[in-house]
Amino acid sequence: MLRFSQKLDRAWAVSGTSLCVGLDPVIARMPPEIRIAPRPVLAFNRFIIDAVGDLVCAFKPQFAHHAAEAAESDLAETIAYIRKTRPGVLIILDAKRGDIGSTAEMYAREAFDRYDADAVTVNPFMGDDAVLPFLTRPDRGAVVLCRTSNPDAARVQGLNSSGEPLFAALARRAETVWNRDGNVMLVVGATAPEDLATVRAAAPSLPFLVPGVGEQGGSAEEVVRRGARADGSGLIVSVSRAILHAGDANAVRAAALRFHAELKTREAVG
Amino acid sequence: MLRFSQKLDRAWAVSGTSLCVGLDPVIARMPPEIRIAPRPVLAFNRFIIDAVGDLVCAFKPQFAHHAAEAAESDLAETIAYIRKTRPGVLIILDAKRGDIGSTAEMYAREAFDRYDADAVTVNPFMGDDAVLPFLTRPDRGAVVLCRTSNPDAARVQGLNSSGEPLFAALARRAETVWNRDGNVMLVVGATAPEDLATVRAAAPSLPFLVPGVGEQGGSAEEVVRRGARADGSGLIVSVSRAILHAGDANAVRAAALRFHAELKTREAVG
Repeated sequence: MLRFSQKLDRAWAVSGTSLCVGLDPVIARMPPEIRIAPRPVLAFNRFIIDAVGDLVCAFKPQFAHHAAEAAESDLAETIAYIRKTRPGVLIILDAKRGDIGSTAEMYAREAFDRYDADAVTVNPFMGDDAVLPFLTRPDRGAVVLCRTSNPDAARVQGLNSSGEPLFAALARRAETVWNRDGNVMLVVGATAPEDLATVRAAAPSLPFLVPGVGEQGGSAEEVVRRGARADGSGLIVSVSRAILHAGDANAVRAAALRFHAELKTREAVG
Repeated sequence: MLRFSQKLDRAWAVSGTSLCVGLDPVIARMPPEIRIAPRPVLAFNRFIIDAVGDLVCAFKPQFAHHAAEAAESDLAETIAYIRKTRPGVLIILDAKRGDIGSTAEMYAREAFDRYDADAVTVNPFMGDDAVLPFLTRPDRGAVVLCRTSNPDAARVQGLNSSGEPLFAALARRAETVWNRDGNVMLVVGATAPEDLATVRAAAPSLPFLVPGVGEQGGSAEEVVRRGARADGSGLIVSVSRAILHAGDANAVRAAALRFHAELKTREAVG
């Protein structure tokens, strides 16, 4: 059994990129022939996976987009389809779970057993109690919200915590306390590049999941410059709408290739 | 169409209590004859609703306990069963959603359209962007995490925000900015009574959802004394395990009656 950090290294090595594509199916924005399929959510996800699966280190299925459509079985089959067709690719369930104790354990069971995700996004508003239940399996990880990409992110995340912003304090705690099994990542948005550098200074070794490149306006080049680890690695850069809604399969692939070119890690191996 | 605040007033008036029972089905802790039912989650929820439905102002189905069992259809049927058998009772989906923009809108659709909940719990770590999408329907509410009942709650929620704890700042913002349609509530735990009084001072008019009474050790009498509005109203006090796991139907009802006696609002009407 690979540990989470080994899976991550493998995903980067096999793909040669830090590009991750979010799977946020929106029926109204799907190509017409997919929109009328019997299971449009599953059909759309497979369409994207087929178009860009060789260009990504990770896929990030978004929970709400499936839950609003009562498409839990589509979500499960999507993940199984990635496992079958792209076995080295990391799967991050973006569900932003934020609960404690036995309830958080239920969410871990859901993400890791029911859906077989490698990692799940987690909200730390309730403190350690909301994070630690997701870290008991060395082969599965938690991706903890730290400094998100949205306009009002700083209201809570930017508060002072013993002389530094909360996002820096959370990063430090993640690096020094939560990461005993090497299975913690942080969500750090591309839209605040200076804060990205601050989080990197507070958590020199942790991998980051970086949203906000693409339609939200963040720059891939700047993300790499400010957010990478000293050795140039450590990033999963997630793009959703700018790729998902590009058009037909050729247009989707062309959009992904542009991000892929900006987010090369090394020559792909394996 | 009743507004959310009218639904809440009706729920208190019909039941004469501030008691809410959480529906957190755990198969291993169910009575043996329910555990072996074809759909144990639904059977257990109906068992609880039948036993205590006349003693509560609200039921609070817990999302994770259903999601871990792939029991979305049981969750939907549970809510429909409450609507049918206890039409005046408020239904709060405890899912602690914490996402932004179009994703948060998807979660609102899930809670209000798919599951027909009256309110959903919401996590404000991402700021206004995570709260406002749940407030666009005057007949549905958001119950925003403010000061939770768990041991490490203060790590984030107790940080200083312009001279007061974050939980007080969130309460003030909820009262003065978010509550334009009268559909905001706050989660304030029973385990920190002084903080409960602080939140009440910051949000004099908002209703509170108060967990932490029962197995977590909070006192119902102290919750009412510290947390009620000036007129004595304004509370939904949620108890889960101390009632759910009491035993057979008579034991469950007896456990609920003890809390009900401590949490009377006025003589039930209607």
